[in-house]
Amino acid sequence: MAYDSGNIFAKILRGEIPSVKVYEDEHALAFMDVMPQADGHTLVIPKENAETIFDLSPEGAAHLIQLTQKIARAVKAGMAAEGITLMQFNGAAAGQTVPHIHFHILPRWEGVALRRHGGGMENADKLKGFADRIQAALG
Amino acid sequence: MAYDSGNIFAKILRGEIPSVKVYEDEHALAFMDVMPQADGHTLVIPKENAETIFDLSPEGAAHLIQLTQKIARAVKAGMAAEGITLMQFNGAAAGQTVPHIHFHILPRWEGVALRRHGGGMENADKLKGFADRIQAALG
Repeated sequence: MAYDSGNIFAKILRGEIPSVKVYEDEHALAFMDVMPQADGHTLVIPKENAETIFDLSPEGAAHLIQLTQKIARAVKAGMAAEGITLMQFNGAAAGQTVPHIHFHILPRWEGVALRRHGGGMENADKLKGFADRIQAALG
Repeated sequence: MAYDSGNIFAKILRGEIPSVKVYEDEHALAFMDVMPQADGHTLVIPKENAETIFDLSPEGAAHLIQLTQKIARAVKAGMAAEGITLMQFNGAAAGQTVPHIHFHILPRWEGVALRRHGGGMENADKLKGFADRIQAALG
């Protein structure tokens, strides 16, 4: 399917919509999910125009997982998480809501269930506080 | 944490335990999950000894996602799925049950919920039928 350059993440990448950023390089961006399923819920997206993992180049996929690995390590340390769940949805039937490929990095703790996806907008200061902790762990 | 070479996936990699294989190369193996959350639920694991994504080399991570991309494409086609969900759990608190890193490839259809993880062993012939369809799509 043709990439829709009007999607929210494309707008974030172009700076047309604000986001609480954790990391950015020439290939990718990591930022806080505004409707988090867990405290510290972070998204990693490539700058390549790709709707799903099937549209992403192999080189883009390699960079994306390597950055996800690096950011997930910082999310785990910064949020003092006991575990990390990665999720990546391709297609509406799989739960994809924004048509730009993204990895969800979800901090997990024993006995703490994930909140519902799209459950509500998180307070921006709270997101900024989590991003600061993750960035400090990134070094 | 030190890698536990007695885990089930290590035994599958060594051929000590059977599995319904979809694909194998020098770096990785793809096979059917015996307690599937969806028809066609496939696992991709590296041959590198790594418990979580944090223990995997960057090169290993790159190969693993590129193979996951390839296998997921075949799972989607072979199972005539409408979408694909990828999940990857790191640590017991995140739902990891086997201490060898693995990507879950889950075929999705509108209106079909994922079954419970570890809900029960699937019939081997049924798994083999799904593997045949996925292998045919792999070409």
